[in-house]
Amino acid sequence: MIAIDWGTSSFRAFRLDAAGALRDRRAAARGILAVEGSRFEEELLSQVGDWLADGETRIIMSGMIGSRQGWVEAPYLHCPAGPAELAAGLVTVAFDCAALRLVPGLTCLDAAGMPEVMRGEETQIVGVLDGVGDALVCLPGSHAKWARVAAGRIAGFETYLSGEAFAALRGHTILGRMMREARSDPAAFDRGVAHAAAPGHLLHQLFGVRTLGLFGRLGEAESASYLSGLLIGHEVRAALPASAGTVHLIGAAALAALYARAIAAQGGQTVIHDEDAASRGLARLGEMAAWG
Amino acid sequence: MIAIDWGTSSFRAFRLDAAGALRDRRAAARGILAVEGSRFEEELLSQVGDWLADGETRIIMSGMIGSRQGWVEAPYLHCPAGPAELAAGLVTVAFDCAALRLVPGLTCLDAAGMPEVMRGEETQIVGVLDGVGDALVCLPGSHAKWARVAAGRIAGFETYLSGEAFAALRGHTILGRMMREARSDPAAFDRGVAHAAAPGHLLHQLFGVRTLGLFGRLGEAESASYLSGLLIGHEVRAALPASAGTVHLIGAAALAALYARAIAAQGGQTVIHDEDAASRGLARLGEMAAWG
Repeated sequence: MIAIDWGTSSFRAFRLDAAGALRDRRAAARGILAVEGSRFEEELLSQVGDWLADGETRIIMSGMIGSRQGWVEAPYLHCPAGPAELAAGLVTVAFDCAALRLVPGLTCLDAAGMPEVMRGEETQIVGVLDGVGDALVCLPGSHAKWARVAAGRIAGFETYLSGEAFAALRGHTILGRMMREARSDPAAFDRGVAHAAAPGHLLHQLFGVRTLGLFGRLGEAESASYLSGLLIGHEVRAALPASAGTVHLIGAAALAALYARAIAAQGGQTVIHDEDAASRGLARLGEMAAWG
Repeated sequence: MIAIDWGTSSFRAFRLDAAGALRDRRAAARGILAVEGSRFEEELLSQVGDWLADGETRIIMSGMIGSRQGWVEAPYLHCPAGPAELAAGLVTVAFDCAALRLVPGLTCLDAAGMPEVMRGEETQIVGVLDGVGDALVCLPGSHAKWARVAAGRIAGFETYLSGEAFAALRGHTILGRMMREARSDPAAFDRGVAHAAAPGHLLHQLFGVRTLGLFGRLGEAESASYLSGLLIGHEVRAALPASAGTVHLIGAAALAALYARAIAAQGGQTVIHDEDAASRGLARLGEMAAWG
């Protein structure tokens, strides 16, 4: 079986054996926004046509490929939902060269009754379900997701725009003028996390990034990490209940490590899972699927 | 006397008679960042040279012209500070064609011990001091200032980055993709203000701007106003104490009116002052100055 995590900006394919183990993998900067004229069929063949020629007959995909801007819009399933609901909700996509199934996204209502959505993260969470028990799973990124897992299903979740807000604030406000491109600075990140716990609203504390620079208390090579810590610190304080237990992080190593620092500063514990959670989740849903 | 409010992006000049009344005015998009090579002396002559030729001998200036990027860096005075401290702290600038004085900016520490700064707003506040008593004065803008006035002086203040954050989020995140350029929509603004009072952190609620659009609950012509309401709603909730009394707003009419709506939604009352507060503040400080 071929498992594909096809997001907004990236394409990742995994070739799995009958037991779900990884035989081969490839990745390309061919997210759905990069595919001219939405020619997803052509793109898919150009990426994994050789695996199909080599005998693969089944493909399962997750991510933004199932959105309105993707190949076929897969309706959102409502939480709580777990592997059984997701496998039963797989959408069949017409494709000449293999049986093709799409994992639906999830929706729920937040504490204020506002709609929430995810596409792709549900599959990554399925990929770590066996180990986590009832727990909080966090997937850092441009739009970070915090999901509650209970009884083997995703009970609900919340999205935080911290990652994209960081990029917009750094790139397009006065705060960025005082930032020099630099390596991540853990000490400056920790200062930002600590400041997130101080009195004052985030919209006020953001201006402090500038004044600390003006008064020589924050260097140009430190201020991007400080801003990142301030935003992630706010996110963690808001998303992490007092009695959270261990938080399971799924994501790129560097960013997951920053989240782990911020969660530790709040007294929380973390386990970091790698991004191949997507491959394991797709393998599991593919096993449960009706391939007809 | 000539009074000048010279900010980052704009230049405003007022010609005052001996009693401080307005004889003439002019404005230009010649903020300090627009003056090539920091040739401020030339710029000043090109803007008000005819008034000098007509007999004016004194100029008083406020705003970012007194910053590190300006003509001369005027040190910040510490709060509490009022007209007497500001007049005593005027900085003399060498200029061949008139006596030239610069109003210093103010600094203080916020509730978390972080430094705060303003340049120009202190002069606008002086311009409304006579009418306000002990009160909160709010100056909306890219970097909105909330100042506490007590016993005729500025006791302290806080800055909120809401305006600049709005522009960066609208222009450079996924939220902006769902926004059509449209007139301000008061009903959508009010919905944003109301949502700011709902459970959930701002960084989470920002993602709601997208999901409401996805589910057809917020139109493309409404979402910019909704985002503005969400940010200003958060700012007002954070900056407005329960027992604030009347808030005095100084600023452009349209933006001040939005702040008044958000403050009213929090049960507060407002008085809106026009932007000529700068002229009145400069007139008062000019009267008190030692022109030597």
